[in-house]
Amino acid sequence: MIDNLNDFVSIQLVKNAKEALYIQLYNKLLKLIRERRLPPGTKLPSVRKLANCLSINAGTVVNAYRELEKNGFIFSSAGSGSYVSEHPLGVHSAVDYEVDTAKIYSTELLAPIKNTSAINMRSISLNPDIVSVSELKKVLIKILDRDQGRAFTYQESQGFFPLRESIAEYLKSNGIKTNAQNLQIISGAQQGIDIAARTLLNHGDYVFTETPTYPGAVAAFLARGAKIIDIPLEEDGIDLNLLESQLRKFHPKLIYVMPILQNPSGCSYSLKKRNRLLSLAHYYNTFILEDDYISELSYQTVPLSPLKSLDRDDRIIYIKSFSKIFMPGLRLAFLNMPECLSKKLLKVKYIADISTSGFTQRIFDLYLREGLWQKHVNDIRRIYNAQFDFAYNTAKQYLPAEVTWHNPHGGLSFWLKLPKRINAGELCSAAEKNNLLLTDGTGFYPHHTDTHHIRISFAALSLQQIETGMRILGKLLSTKDTPIK
Amino acid sequence: MIDNLNDFVSIQLVKNAKEALYIQLYNKLLKLIRERRLPPGTKLPSVRKLANCLSINAGTVVNAYRELEKNGFIFSSAGSGSYVSEHPLGVHSAVDYEVDTAKIYSTELLAPIKNTSAINMRSISLNPDIVSVSELKKVLIKILDRDQGRAFTYQESQGFFPLRESIAEYLKSNGIKTNAQNLQIISGAQQGIDIAARTLLNHGDYVFTETPTYPGAVAAFLARGAKIIDIPLEEDGIDLNLLESQLRKFHPKLIYVMPILQNPSGCSYSLKKRNRLLSLAHYYNTFILEDDYISELSYQTVPLSPLKSLDRDDRIIYIKSFSKIFMPGLRLAFLNMPECLSKKLLKVKYIADISTSGFTQRIFDLYLREGLWQKHVNDIRRIYNAQFDFAYNTAKQYLPAEVTWHNPHGGLSFWLKLPKRINAGELCSAAEKNNLLLTDGTGFYPHHTDTHHIRISFAALSLQQIETGMRILGKLLSTKDTPIK
Repeated sequence: MIDNLNDFVSIQLVKNAKEALYIQLYNKLLKLIRERRLPPGTKLPSVRKLANCLSINAGTVVNAYRELEKNGFIFSSAGSGSYVSEHPLGVHSAVDYEVDTAKIYSTELLAPIKNTSAINMRSISLNPDIVSVSELKKVLIKILDRDQGRAFTYQESQGFFPLRESIAEYLKSNGIKTNAQNLQIISGAQQGIDIAARTLLNHGDYVFTETPTYPGAVAAFLARGAKIIDIPLEEDGIDLNLLESQLRKFHPKLIYVMPILQNPSGCSYSLKKRNRLLSLAHYYNTFILEDDYISELSYQTVPLSPLKSLDRDDRIIYIKSFSKIFMPGLRLAFLNMPECLSKKLLKVKYIADISTSGFTQRIFDLYLREGLWQKHVNDIRRIYNAQFDFAYNTAKQYLPAEVTWHNPHGGLSFWLKLPKRINAGELCSAAEKNNLLLTDGTGFYPHHTDTHHIRISFAALSLQQIETGMRILGKLLSTKDTPIK
Repeated sequence: MIDNLNDFVSIQLVKNAKEALYIQLYNKLLKLIRERRLPPGTKLPSVRKLANCLSINAGTVVNAYRELEKNGFIFSSAGSGSYVSEHPLGVHSAVDYEVDTAKIYSTELLAPIKNTSAINMRSISLNPDIVSVSELKKVLIKILDRDQGRAFTYQESQGFFPLRESIAEYLKSNGIKTNAQNLQIISGAQQGIDIAARTLLNHGDYVFTETPTYPGAVAAFLARGAKIIDIPLEEDGIDLNLLESQLRKFHPKLIYVMPILQNPSGCSYSLKKRNRLLSLAHYYNTFILEDDYISELSYQTVPLSPLKSLDRDDRIIYIKSFSKIFMPGLRLAFLNMPECLSKKLLKVKYIADISTSGFTQRIFDLYLREGLWQKHVNDIRRIYNAQFDFAYNTAKQYLPAEVTWHNPHGGLSFWLKLPKRINAGELCSAAEKNNLLLTDGTGFYPHHTDTHHIRISFAALSLQQIETGMRILGKLLSTKDTPIK
């Protein structure tokens, strides 16, 4: 680090060289900046001082400083001189600006969990040991034998046509009438949300979400520079009175909802709220982005149909992932697109990654056609219904009565409301020290307005682990001397 | 369609109903608009006329019109009245605005090629029949037996760690020193370009590209609202004098280049140009996005190293796809990230699709570790070297001398310069009628400034098809009575 003017004397310039003096000076100063001998924030000597010190023309210094400033290495502050920039590489990026405000809470994916011996109530991925690989292996081999190298050729950007046909057929059983033309195969639900955001949102546009909601969606909306208005959930769905008054004020481009077994709350919309939401979207002329998060894991005898099945207006973009309750590693989902948006969505998908793996699409197509998907869903539903009942009963047994939750009719997790004296983040830290991983619910609130919810999941646990986890949690919630405020 | 005021009389409003009169009127008018009985552009009756006609208060009509306008169904033009909107669903989107100017030319992926019996000199995908599936099948089965259901669990967003280690090791042989921490696994090169664009570019920023260049990159830059300055290619790389003068003017955030076997021109940068490009990027403080398109298919004895191997400054984002000369359907590539950008790039990847398929990553990791990749590359290089020589000789034999091209030292295609009297688009149409598919080069120029180049590829053809194709092309280029101007 250079402390005073004397150090600048070390700068050697060659008069009458091929390179102009100011360029030589530029390069010497740049070297000092890059080596952090002139760290960010350092004040540079005045033009006159440096010129005197190096016995050169003041104009040469002015030119070198101007060039450094134009290229972002230094900045000048009127009347006070020139300083080395904070980010001399110009890395103030789009993402910085827009997304840093959104904490992405799914840390389990950004970095692997270190404490692997802990009881993991954070993961909502199925226990890999109960997913049967043998059927899939047969399908894989069939595809390789059938399609050979063609299984790996480039794929039509919209998706493998036979798969789109299979999905259109499958959707009929969910009350959704569509066809291969209006389906777009994507690499997981997150990509669908991101593509919808890129298609519909410009900087400054409004998006409505439920609150709590999925933070990955919020991050995608913020990455477009959109503004989020979050509307509280009630037991039977979003607060429609508040929604309407906000619609009147803000005219959003998009309303993002999970009407069945919402993540993280587990709540599902009543039929009345579904219909009213649709008429409001119609009246206020906005699109709905329906994220069908996990509707197959409804343990009711008559499962709810997606909102899309009521969409006579063709204004719902319906996203469904096949990976959530199957194999997240496959990265496979689809969009059912309103006709008026399909061309635009297709374009954005193309720009994003050209196409989803054709190999995966061929595998899944056969898996659907052979009825293996339905069989898998039935198996998983049976297994997790038992897990759910067990988790519910142990929660009732071990958790203090002041902790409340809405009883969902399906899914892989509970959404617990803590008493006001307990902060969710602190509880999660304390739990981790006790070998129990929980999800702090704060990140599910787009503006982090609630710090008293946690999500606990039993997706990846054995019954014994569920019981141990609930016991530890119950103890932490009841003890007075943990670091919980 | 409603032709005159009398038709509005059919609107029935119920006084003293629960719904306010203006909301009833709003809904009736909306219904007429949606059913296109009031098509876009229709002028609505004046407030006074409609109020008289329905025997209601003028204020009721004013309120209904105001509500329709606020929600985007109608617009008013000062002094001239109210009209039904062109896009009543508000579908003027981000994409419309920014990307419609970029024609995406890879139509083979947006829609399947209809004429499958044609000789396809458009496709640059390997002939699927020469890709051996048997080795891959063995690897697949090993992974399934080894990892079982875990092969399909969620994947760390940055990528499967062992694969990143394998890639770091592999890069050493290309002269690139890096480690797993600076690698990000992505779903194909296009995703890498898109992620870099989203990380570095804001609306109005400048990006420099070569011209001609890959249109998928241009589309990704335009989707960020960036402005493209395209710099012509010379035989030994980009025109550096022009580059420097433009750098002085525009201060781009990014320079996008393919220094080895560029797509579509096939040219490679001289060592002198590589070094000078790097010092210019240093001097003018900008990042370089290096797309290593197909460097393995160099038929020289000593293949060129990537620009990244000379990057002492850590300012190159290096993208390499494994799918191009292997299996495009796998969708697998990686970014080697400058350290100062890695956190930001990781975030954008997460928002885009959480992670690339973990199953694919595990397969490819083993494929690399078992030396099968290197074996595959050697096989493919040998096969395509022969194809290349054959294609080169038949081109010399059949194409008229007025058609010229730079002789690349590798790759899967030639970039032909047509005489001025021949328009590339018209030639391609004429060829298609003669059962030959060519790629119109116009789309490779970001501003479509050149209409006299075509790309012909021999990637998917047999030797016999190459010869037939060249013969047809030669005939079309020589005939005077084809519709070629």
